Amino acid sequence: MKNCFLVWFMVFVSVPAALGATSRISEETEACLKCHRLAHPGIVADWQNGRMAKVTPAAARSMILKKRRVSFDEAPDRLARVFVGCAECHTMNPDRHQDTFEHNGYQVHVVVTPEDCATCHPAEAGQYDKNIMSRAYGNLQNNPVYRALADSANGIQTFRDMKTTQKAPDAETDADSCFYCHGTVVEVKGAVARNTAHGEMSFPVLSGWPNQGVGRINPDGSMGSCASCHTRHEFSIEMARKPYTCSECHKGPDVPAYKVYSVSKHGNIYSGVGKAWDYKAVPWTVGKDFTAPTCAVCHVSLVVSEKGEVLAERTHQMSDRLSWRIFGLIYAHAHPDSPDTTIIKNKAGLPLPTELTGEPVTAFLIDAQEQEKRDKTMQGICLACHSQGWVDGQFARFEHAIKTTNEMTLTATRVLLAAWEKGAAKGLAQKDSIFNEAIEKKWVEQWLFFANSTRFASAMAGADYGSFADGRWYMSKNIQEMIDWLEFTKGGLK
Amino acid sequence: MKNCFLVWFMVFVSVPAALGATSRISEETEACLKCHRLAHPGIVADWQNGRMAKVTPAAARSMILKKRRVSFDEAPDRLARVFVGCAECHTMNPDRHQDTFEHNGYQVHVVVTPEDCATCHPAEAGQYDKNIMSRAYGNLQNNPVYRALADSANGIQTFRDMKTTQKAPDAETDADSCFYCHGTVVEVKGAVARNTAHGEMSFPVLSGWPNQGVGRINPDGSMGSCASCHTRHEFSIEMARKPYTCSECHKGPDVPAYKVYSVSKHGNIYSGVGKAWDYKAVPWTVGKDFTAPTCAVCHVSLVVSEKGEVLAERTHQMSDRLSWRIFGLIYAHAHPDSPDTTIIKNKAGLPLPTELTGEPVTAFLIDAQEQEKRDKTMQGICLACHSQGWVDGQFARFEHAIKTTNEMTLTATRVLLAAWEKGAAKGLAQKDSIFNEAIEKKWVEQWLFFANSTRFASAMAGADYGSFADGRWYMSKNIQEMIDWLEFTKGGLK
Amino acid sequence: MKNCFLVWFMVFVSVPAALGATSRISEETEACLKCHRLAHPGIVADWQNGRMAKVTPAAARSMILKKRRVSFDEAPDRLARVFVGCAECHTMNPDRHQDTFEHNGYQVHVVVTPEDCATCHPAEAGQYDKNIMSRAYGNLQNNPVYRALADSANGIQTFRDMKTTQKAPDAETDADSCFYCHGTVVEVKGAVARNTAHGEMSFPVLSGWPNQGVGRINPDGSMGSCASCHTRHEFSIEMARKPYTCSECHKGPDVPAYKVYSVSKHGNIYSGVGKAWDYKAVPWTVGKDFTAPTCAVCHVSLVVSEKGEVLAERTHQMSDRLSWRIFGLIYAHAHPDSPDTTIIKNKAGLPLPTELTGEPVTAFLIDAQEQEKRDKTMQGICLACHSQGWVDGQFARFEHAIKTTNEMTLTATRVLLAAWEKGAAKGLAQKDSIFNEAIEKKWVEQWLFFANSTRFASAMAGADYGSFADGRWYMSKNIQEMIDWLEFTKGGLK
Repeated sequence: MKNCFLVWFMVFVSVPAALGATSRISEETEACLKCHRLAHPGIVADWQNGRMAKVTPAAARSMILKKRRVSFDEAPDRLARVFVGCAECHTMNPDRHQDTFEHNGYQVHVVVTPEDCATCHPAEAGQYDKNIMSRAYGNLQNNPVYRALADSANGIQTFRDMKTTQKAPDAETDADSCFYCHGTVVEVKGAVARNTAHGEMSFPVLSGWPNQGVGRINPDGSMGSCASCHTRHEFSIEMARKPYTCSECHKGPDVPAYKVYSVSKHGNIYSGVGKAWDYKAVPWTVGKDFTAPTCAVCHVSLVVSEKGEVLAERTHQMSDRLSWRIFGLIYAHAHPDSPDTTIIKNKAGLPLPTELTGEPVTAFLIDAQEQEKRDKTMQGICLACHSQGWVDGQFARFEHAIKTTNEMTLTATRVLLAAWEKGAAKGLAQKDSIFNEAIEKKWVEQWLFFANSTRFASAMAGADYGSFADGRWYMSKNIQEMIDWLEFTKGGLK
Repeated sequence: MKNCFLVWFMVFVSVPAALGATSRISEETEACLKCHRLAHPGIVADWQNGRMAKVTPAAARSMILKKRRVSFDEAPDRLARVFVGCAECHTMNPDRHQDTFEHNGYQVHVVVTPEDCATCHPAEAGQYDKNIMSRAYGNLQNNPVYRALADSANGIQTFRDMKTTQKAPDAETDADSCFYCHGTVVEVKGAVARNTAHGEMSFPVLSGWPNQGVGRINPDGSMGSCASCHTRHEFSIEMARKPYTCSECHKGPDVPAYKVYSVSKHGNIYSGVGKAWDYKAVPWTVGKDFTAPTCAVCHVSLVVSEKGEVLAERTHQMSDRLSWRIFGLIYAHAHPDSPDTTIIKNKAGLPLPTELTGEPVTAFLIDAQEQEKRDKTMQGICLACHSQGWVDGQFARFEHAIKTTNEMTLTATRVLLAAWEKGAAKGLAQKDSIFNEAIEKKWVEQWLFFANSTRFASAMAGADYGSFADGRWYMSKNIQEMIDWLEFTKGGLK
Repeated sequence: MKNCFLVWFMVFVSVPAALGATSRISEETEACLKCHRLAHPGIVADWQNGRMAKVTPAAARSMILKKRRVSFDEAPDRLARVFVGCAECHTMNPDRHQDTFEHNGYQVHVVVTPEDCATCHPAEAGQYDKNIMSRAYGNLQNNPVYRALADSANGIQTFRDMKTTQKAPDAETDADSCFYCHGTVVEVKGAVARNTAHGEMSFPVLSGWPNQGVGRINPDGSMGSCASCHTRHEFSIEMARKPYTCSECHKGPDVPAYKVYSVSKHGNIYSGVGKAWDYKAVPWTVGKDFTAPTCAVCHVSLVVSEKGEVLAERTHQMSDRLSWRIFGLIYAHAHPDSPDTTIIKNKAGLPLPTELTGEPVTAFLIDAQEQEKRDKTMQGICLACHSQGWVDGQFARFEHAIKTTNEMTLTATRVLLAAWEKGAAKGLAQKDSIFNEAIEKKWVEQWLFFANSTRFASAMAGADYGSFADGRWYMSKNIQEMIDWLEFTKGGLK
């Protein structure tokens, strides 16, 4: 029994004590918990399950560098010796927050932002700011080409006199569609009084709420939401490292990363034996903590070998390990240099990283040297389990898929250009939307669904999605159907 | 070692004893087991894994109300002190069962029905009877509009003289398609003799068998199958509470609930950390037993807070918490008042809850007050983890999605009406099926796939299915393709 | 504490000792590990997790027959008393291997093949050789009809003068698409020098690499890859028995086995409670080790009852339990007799198991007696958990689905024949590809996607995929769209 006691002591008493586990909940957080424990028991229970409810920032800072999950240099006085609870986050930086409101004597804000999290995690917030995801709102909303694509999907169409008309979509619909993942603009739009267990209270009314999109524009002016991946209020590293988190936004036909992963050998290993892995270890040791990559292994996490060799540094700028941008755009191309892609202009004056015929707008894209560097970073992980010959073959095949899918998109584009030229459809020259007619929508699917899917399948070795499932079969069929459309339509072939 | 012994005693001896765990298998069940243990070892093992093989109804009844899984008032003599085994269910109510047959001296029936289960679970059976799912057979079969939709999918088409003809589908095909989930009619159609280990024996031949559809018409005249969700013969509450059970019928493009859930934040939390939850606890405590909802949390289960406050009462009338009916129908509308929807008649005389142009047939639908009541019931669960502001935003967005998807369906309907009017297709006026021609099938997909999907995505916050995956992109494209069809066809635009 | 010690001793000392667990790594493997532990830590860790790193072939052979996982008669001297490590496999049969190269004094080859594995697993390798999957490369590549289908999907199309032209696909694209699952030809194409931690070394350059396709043509002339399902380098039987392994290739619209399983009752049980099952037990006991089938239960594994009765013998010729071939071909038909289907010739001289109008080419297919035998083998498993009446109903419904889906394919074929006849499309008579035009692609989807999906749904009781999800709805709609195409096109109806 003595051993049992020892183990028990180690696990429940001495280790937490070392981490600062004798209750160090701040007075302010205690005040929050007093009521919210009853009002929102799920939130409180979730938080209690998490690490932030058990470890002070100071204790987190005291670990050796490789095991550290915080990146601040100096512990902020207010936070150093308390657990990170309700008040610590929801009253952080009150002056910067447009959504700060008086609540039971505290200056509370609803929306915790990357800038708030940066108090303890400045390195991660800094990396994320260079991540194209942090600009997901503006890169869509402020790019007239992509805004027109969103309009074409979200706008209400009406039918009269054998013609359809499409209205611009309202903000509610946009928020429920594209901007659910891209992020909404969250602003205070007034206040509302509500009867609560403690009498009438006033709360801010927020636009674009709820939202946890990766490029959310926050009431403190910051961009993004750490909670997109680090789900409130447990902030479980296990959850962030599992592929379901990424699949929230990366599963549709436009970006089928999760679906491809799920039919890949990597995905099979994860699904088959991944339940025995350690998803909480920092750093994350290949072969010991896991035996096949999840999304996080290749794209985010600090990965080491059992000997302690660093195979990849942690990054929250996911493009750090990516040389190509393979989805969302008409043609795949070298990754953009800046996370803000609205600054790009091609020869036609459009904010696109390639011409309509596929040539890259190199001035705004990373060069071959940077591409090679990023490939090497990624391969540092591949090589833990694969020989150089295997990896070389894989990368060569992937780059070939980029080339051939771009060629198939070009062919579809040429059919569309012919349709515009012959007056079968109205396009750029007619200053009409290039996304609203049936043949234009087929063209969009050629690249947004089928070419993307094929490239993902190649990149992550989930061949289903490069053959019959939204892959090469559909690229091939779609071109034939575009040509038939041109034949059938009045302004078509002859 | 003493403690170990104590734990062992508690778990394996004293607790089961209190529940009646010294073997209390009835003589009749022992007789069944003697042979069936050999003939169908999987069934017996499954049953042994379950709770019914370990707890007598009397013991189940003796628990405090909140923990109780049975709802009868008086323990039926025959069942009170025995475990619920083969004989208890398969010889229940022999006179009501058309499928009762003599088997080794017992009056056995094959198909255990909700009326049999109601012996111990009368409240649940009563609720389920008010559940629209219990009428899933008749609501399809006896509604000429929906029967025509089933015909259009299941009937064999032939091609001759450049024309197709479609036959009415046979019962086998219907049972393999729509009625697999909706439920078949299970009737005795004769008897068959089979050689068994115990000599030749006679067994009833059943129509529509096998089937576990939610609206199955049983040989005792009852409707439904508890085994749809409470899978035989373990009847595991864990399984019923996991989303895979619901996904058996709610995963297709017509009702993508599971797919939407799987890309929602709730689904992500479940997939990421749900393996540690307690799926067997009754009542089910938010924050302690689970930290994000499965289907059952929002739609069925008795949910409480750690303080014991009831957040939602258990219901097997799933519409209890649903104000809107968002799928299966041309337009979303307030939930029907009666589970039997064949009684509805719109102005055009069709058994539909809305006119063809979307106006609800209010006389048969719940009113605004009842809708508000149901919303409040649902929100009791939401508020465990979300603020009122979050919930208000979510519900407002959802109702907006109902409105806009209905508008997009109306536009598609107008194109179809034009096609009928111009003679490009044959519809109601020509007394032709409204589902058999290509443009009619496109119209069906507008509401049955794309509008439904968009509404599910909005309701459960799985935005993929409201944008590119069967969502708004397809609603928008489909209208354009319907108009093109009208242009291309002989009777079309001009 | 004594008991604890005893258990500890049994598990960690005495059992492994009996199996030969005192380290028995060969000198050669030790030499490999010395460097590769650093170079590829993931590979080594994976192998160490597996059974081959812990059990010698001799110990594996010494178990009673039913528990045995090896099938050799005489232990090969070199292998009998060592664990199966790097050198054991990668230096096996060096003379047969075109890819053998000198590496640090050893004759090493990269690609371990079924012939190598056959050293210890000759029965399984022999069965697999009779499995149609082992011929997946040739059955596609050397069948001109299927090769043309692959061309039509994978070839690059160009557009000029209002016409498209399609090139034959290159080997890279083929390897990334169809042959990813079917298997590539892996041949030595030269050598490359690489700088390593041990100076410059030479490695063979392989064509079609990486690849783990089921019909891979190996550098020793053998066919297939055991690693398709027995994932390197852990070779976990648990993984092979879980459905994710099969889903790597059997998830797309052409072969939606996994998707159908996932909405079936069997799949629901697996997903809901399968985490508690024992996936490593040999033999595999129904009711004890698992309570619902995974793919392996029905198609591969040695399955027994708790009484030890064999319900099904292990087979790696998956067709052993399959009377019908329901996917990949234009019409479902009795299973081919030979795994090499290129030997089949129909009356039209095409290498197809049916005529274009569906009549089976019986000379090359198994007869009714063999079909019945295979059905009985499969039903041996079904009956563990289902009555004969249930099973009879299920099989009758399945055979009916084969008949009706074939009829619907025939109708689509007749529309296509009309299109060819009227000159609306170019087909066999014009010696044009029968897969390259839009209407031909629709015809392909009729059988390759929709009829297949419907049959899988029927076979495995996942009705979603037989109704709206790629099932009967699409079969029905597709025929109408083919006819419309014929009307719209210049050479069409009139």
